[in-house]
Amino acid sequence: MTDLNILKKQYQGFVEKIKAYNFVFYIIEWDSQTEAPDDCFEERAKQMKVLAEEQYKIMASKELIAIVDELYSRQNELDDILKHEIIEFKKANDRVIKIPMEEYSELNSLLAVTENIWAKAKDNNDFASFAPYLKRIVELLKKQVKYLETDELKGYDVLLDQYEPGMTIKKYDEFFDLLKTELIPFVKKVTSTKLEFDDSFSKLIYPKNLQKEFTNYLENVMNFDHNKGLSKESAHPFTSGFGTHDVRYTNHFYEDNFISSIFSAIHELGHATYESQVDPLLEDTLSGGGASMAMHESQSRFYENIIGRSYEFWKPNFPVLKKIFKKQLKNVSLDDFIKLINRSENSLIRTEADELTYPIHIMIRYEIEKDLFNDKIQVEDLPKIWNKMIKDNLGIDCPNDTMGVLQDVHWAGGSFGYFPTYALGSAYASQIYYSLIKDVNVQKALKNKSTKEINEWLKEHIHKYGSSKYPQEILKLATNEEFNPHYYIKYLKEKYSKIYNL
Amino acid sequence: MTDLNILKKQYQGFVEKIKAYNFVFYIIEWDSQTEAPDDCFEERAKQMKVLAEEQYKIMASKELIAIVDELYSRQNELDDILKHEIIEFKKANDRVIKIPMEEYSELNSLLAVTENIWAKAKDNNDFASFAPYLKRIVELLKKQVKYLETDELKGYDVLLDQYEPGMTIKKYDEFFDLLKTELIPFVKKVTSTKLEFDDSFSKLIYPKNLQKEFTNYLENVMNFDHNKGLSKESAHPFTSGFGTHDVRYTNHFYEDNFISSIFSAIHELGHATYESQVDPLLEDTLSGGGASMAMHESQSRFYENIIGRSYEFWKPNFPVLKKIFKKQLKNVSLDDFIKLINRSENSLIRTEADELTYPIHIMIRYEIEKDLFNDKIQVEDLPKIWNKMIKDNLGIDCPNDTMGVLQDVHWAGGSFGYFPTYALGSAYASQIYYSLIKDVNVQKALKNKSTKEINEWLKEHIHKYGSSKYPQEILKLATNEEFNPHYYIKYLKEKYSKIYNL
Repeated sequence: MTDLNILKKQYQGFVEKIKAYNFVFYIIEWDSQTEAPDDCFEERAKQMKVLAEEQYKIMASKELIAIVDELYSRQNELDDILKHEIIEFKKANDRVIKIPMEEYSELNSLLAVTENIWAKAKDNNDFASFAPYLKRIVELLKKQVKYLETDELKGYDVLLDQYEPGMTIKKYDEFFDLLKTELIPFVKKVTSTKLEFDDSFSKLIYPKNLQKEFTNYLENVMNFDHNKGLSKESAHPFTSGFGTHDVRYTNHFYEDNFISSIFSAIHELGHATYESQVDPLLEDTLSGGGASMAMHESQSRFYENIIGRSYEFWKPNFPVLKKIFKKQLKNVSLDDFIKLINRSENSLIRTEADELTYPIHIMIRYEIEKDLFNDKIQVEDLPKIWNKMIKDNLGIDCPNDTMGVLQDVHWAGGSFGYFPTYALGSAYASQIYYSLIKDVNVQKALKNKSTKEINEWLKEHIHKYGSSKYPQEILKLATNEEFNPHYYIKYLKEKYSKIYNL
Repeated sequence: MTDLNILKKQYQGFVEKIKAYNFVFYIIEWDSQTEAPDDCFEERAKQMKVLAEEQYKIMASKELIAIVDELYSRQNELDDILKHEIIEFKKANDRVIKIPMEEYSELNSLLAVTENIWAKAKDNNDFASFAPYLKRIVELLKKQVKYLETDELKGYDVLLDQYEPGMTIKKYDEFFDLLKTELIPFVKKVTSTKLEFDDSFSKLIYPKNLQKEFTNYLENVMNFDHNKGLSKESAHPFTSGFGTHDVRYTNHFYEDNFISSIFSAIHELGHATYESQVDPLLEDTLSGGGASMAMHESQSRFYENIIGRSYEFWKPNFPVLKKIFKKQLKNVSLDDFIKLINRSENSLIRTEADELTYPIHIMIRYEIEKDLFNDKIQVEDLPKIWNKMIKDNLGIDCPNDTMGVLQDVHWAGGSFGYFPTYALGSAYASQIYYSLIKDVNVQKALKNKSTKEINEWLKEHIHKYGSSKYPQEILKLATNEEFNPHYYIKYLKEKYSKIYNL
């Protein structure tokens, strides 16, 4: 039997290599999404292919597998953090070594170019130019799924579990069914009620530079530290973190929709706050970053919706917004602004959808993904299917694919099984909220134009753990309760009943 | 004996890996220089160390060495491009395998942070905070030099040869001696003559956004393609290329010195034009990019000084500049502008120095580097020595280290032996110029506000070769003559005699 310290040191050597490659992909992805020139992607794909192969070789090396296997078999001798990491590592590593290297790297190099192709297709409302790439992504993922199936997990379940450990079609079906039974009737009542106020200010032009000025202000409110991160523009807002010292997010500014950049900023800054508040002691481990996709989304949506759309948040911050948009917001009251940012309406764009109708957008994507991976539908038919589901569930006609099936980057990045975590994240967020308000007076906390006290609570109860525990384990530590989606229903009903006077 | 095609294929496999790592360092370096947050560098250094080790393992792998050795021994069976590449590869690889991996990667990870430390030291006029790092860089380089010495090359010669193959202390001493004998008396005559014109417009404030507008215009004049590159800001302008499809440069804007960003742009766009005009057939080889440091500088300085400071260039473009800076240039004539951009004066900052006094700045750096590597002087004493040499050679007092010994990034990047290539590059540029004007009517070529015809000539005679030939071999092909520094003297004397009416 190898000495445990030697074993741990050998493991650490591999961790360093894995982290170095994670860093490489982190930085290339950031460049690709924010500024790389259009014509570089063909050549870049070649480098990505080689790098993916090199990374694969490390993950699939016999030496590492042997080390992890031995640590796994001696997990009771390990501290909690390393023990959890080794269990997860073995799971992830099993995933990698089961997939033949050629297929693994074909997908990776494909994904290095598809986001760019998607961005162009979206710009040109040209699904056909993107379809062959998406088709190949789905094909390759289906093949990968086959390699990864276990007695418990089959088909799409394999992907769901990757994004949220423990979640399956069965569980998601239950979750979405609860939403359907409890929420849909309420949503119908709300969306058929007209919120009376003069919303003409929302249709004015809000210059990009002023929007940027306000989102910079929001960075201060949320304590985003530019010594440990940066913000930029991209087609689709996203956050990317490498440790607590390098957390980056992007935004996109629409001059005819000033609300968009505000809530994208708060949303992404929610992700960024999570990444930056992980315990620095986890820096040199693989247990940094967020605990799961849903837990990450719970934080971004907590800040965006529960905090960011509240009266308590805007009481101190609305005057600043008015000062920046002097002309546009001259005669606008805080009440009307609150109505605008919480108005619930059936709409086309997921990222612009309100809190209440949002889960419907997720349901549509979840159903489509499920059917794609169950071979019930084909990539070519996605625009037609998409448009029908939008019509059936939201009652609106989709005018083009740019605002329809092409609106999200996720599939272009190979992320299938990701979307449902958004709805799950909202449910986590509500449960966390009811726990937080036992300790924190939100109104008082926000008075000084800073989320500091809230950040601190989340750091202590959620963020500091990084990914060193399972998401629902952290949820239980933070809320003293198992996951309970009824908080989500309660929160939405309370909030919207008040806004809509129901 | 291995089949040659198999051998070439094996070699190509390694080339792909080397290119992938080159790409990784290219993209990390770009990020580090242009936007990475301050606090990320400690963690980043860890990743860089691991990546440098991985790259080292590839370069030093027994398999690659055996392949290169066999190809080297069979070089007469190879086409010219591969033959040249293998000869150079063997030289470079010898360099790597002679240096112990620990020392190789210590320097690399040190260099990942020192440029940032230098930038802060420069900002704060604090040489002492940078000195320990610079000291360690020099120590490590000296150790590396020891490993790399041959019968022909000792000490500083080893570094000189790395930046410009074939150049040594002996040859550079001869070159700088010629400049001293032929040029220094002429420079004294010029700098003691006062160029009569009203230069008050040069002391006005030129807003950054307008400077950017003009440098964007210059990108069009020089045919810089944003589908194949991008431009950004950094503390010190630089150009970085990865193939012909991803060429990037930076600029720095001083509102009280509008001339600076104009000529930095033209200079860096000169480098960028070179990188982008290499034959795309060299894309998948290691023979892309510039032929050498001096050849690269010959192109940047050709565009910056010979073209960019000429009457022929500004005749069509000055009206555009006047239109952008309506107020500042209202009553300024083309003649006065030409005088301003060609005025020769002894000054402190190398990158701002005029064409004529520029080689004196290089001589100072060359002498200091030579003495550092001959153990005649110490890092701690650099500010004192620097200031004395500035006083002795240029007759001015250096007011602080920011404008003195800390002004250049090169040493922070471990680039010793690089500076002298700048002067050599200017000499190459002059020789190339006298050859170009046999084929191209520069005045006519520039009339349409485009350097297209000049770009084409340089592409055909210099750029297309990439690094598939030695610099002085390309110079001979382009000019039908061996390197002849007298063209440099001739060019400078002709130009400045005219401007100064001597």
